[in-house]
Amino acid sequence: MSTRLPIGVFDSGVGGLTVLRALQRALPGESFLYLGDTARLPYGTKSPGTIARYAMQAARVLVDRGIDSLVVACNTASAVALDDLRAALPELEVTGVVEPGAAAAVASSKGGAIGVIGTESTIRGGAYAHAIARLSPGARVVGLPCPLFVALAEEGWTEGPIPEAVAHAYLDPIKDGIDTLVLGCTHFPLLAAAIAATVGPRVTIVDSAATTAERVRAALERRGHTQAPDGATRSTVLLATDGRERFARVGSRFLGIDLVPDAVELVDL
Amino acid sequence: MSTRLPIGVFDSGVGGLTVLRALQRALPGESFLYLGDTARLPYGTKSPGTIARYAMQAARVLVDRGIDSLVVACNTASAVALDDLRAALPELEVTGVVEPGAAAAVASSKGGAIGVIGTESTIRGGAYAHAIARLSPGARVVGLPCPLFVALAEEGWTEGPIPEAVAHAYLDPIKDGIDTLVLGCTHFPLLAAAIAATVGPRVTIVDSAATTAERVRAALERRGHTQAPDGATRSTVLLATDGRERFARVGSRFLGIDLVPDAVELVDL
Repeated sequence: MSTRLPIGVFDSGVGGLTVLRALQRALPGESFLYLGDTARLPYGTKSPGTIARYAMQAARVLVDRGIDSLVVACNTASAVALDDLRAALPELEVTGVVEPGAAAAVASSKGGAIGVIGTESTIRGGAYAHAIARLSPGARVVGLPCPLFVALAEEGWTEGPIPEAVAHAYLDPIKDGIDTLVLGCTHFPLLAAAIAATVGPRVTIVDSAATTAERVRAALERRGHTQAPDGATRSTVLLATDGRERFARVGSRFLGIDLVPDAVELVDL
Repeated sequence: MSTRLPIGVFDSGVGGLTVLRALQRALPGESFLYLGDTARLPYGTKSPGTIARYAMQAARVLVDRGIDSLVVACNTASAVALDDLRAALPELEVTGVVEPGAAAAVASSKGGAIGVIGTESTIRGGAYAHAIARLSPGARVVGLPCPLFVALAEEGWTEGPIPEAVAHAYLDPIKDGIDTLVLGCTHFPLLAAAIAATVGPRVTIVDSAATTAERVRAALERRGHTQAPDGATRSTVLLATDGRERFARVGSRFLGIDLVPDAVELVDL
């Protein structure tokens, strides 16, 4: 077998680790190189020019270390910087999280009534609404910022009466008018159980992380990659631009394994 | 009467508007110039050198417009940059939020068991614990990060079962061991009712915003300022480095009056 380069993944922080986790599940034979730009988060409140510049710097760190393809596991950067990244890195397959989530929502929605939840900047920016409209011009999209979900996920309060009460407060007003709900924020898969219990079985939950991982798997297959054989050496390397201790502590919940600060390498952008 | 320059107030975002509100109450005859560095928030995750540089740039904008004195209404900048600001601006009275809150806690605590709640960076940085230890070396300080309170305040969910459940989850484990609780984050005065109901009447709540405003009032009096007469022209000018719409919308809750985006002036640092 040939030596395969890792798949590069970047996010503004730890949220993209849910995308990395989905990628590890979908592609168990691959190696990964993850960068969380924790020194400069959040991207969502910054101008498009700044976000594009930060995304390019992050991508360059991964490209310089050698990657097979690039996953932009950050909703803000996916919405703002994907075209710039593809133009600057024509040799690389670049996948964002918005378009796979939008495509999965359109495929799942029978009535064309799609809810999208995310951070305030993602929802106000309208990236999912635009992506859904491109794929299905007749779809009705209800966008709802759910910033408390981010805080709950980072705090690790993902089960019990508090996340359930928050989910009801956010979702009760919209759940009867939708048949599909997109988790349009990398933090939200941690709250999937509370969200699903609130909207009920009539509403299909679309997880952008999982659909993005499927998209990357399909792209690798299209390029003729075969799954690495069992027992092949594979690795996941984690980079952050600040706060290894917090990255390890909060990131453990997102990645689903216990991380120690020494497992996170600090890099300067 | 002489024309008096406004009091300058700066914060990384809208949280400091609770300090501005307390200042307006304590000093109804004064004018104020407020700057929220919304483009670069949060300060709490940045390095001390970067925070000091940002704080100096923010202070310079206010000084260039003309201010009578400066209030650093940001816990992170108060903890990290106060000495640098005082050294660079020796002609100006500079007041932070940490030391007044610590002093009020020491004054109120009978048993010397003081709880401090704030953001993760404020609590882990230990600024309140150090300030309390300087004033009362025997005091026992319990620091507790309460990041959900920030999200609740920004979302405007300050009353009802959700903030009450969050307050119980955070404070029930510490409330029996303290006699005083410092609200060590500019967002927390919005949740004072839920916090007070949770810890009960045995625990004295110290609001850093109110104690800072008292400190500024006392300093003005020491310098021989008298309250401006009723009917004197007074104004509050609001500056932000990004996001006037969000600043006005979220800031309205913090300042306690309805703001429109046009009331916020964008400045570049």
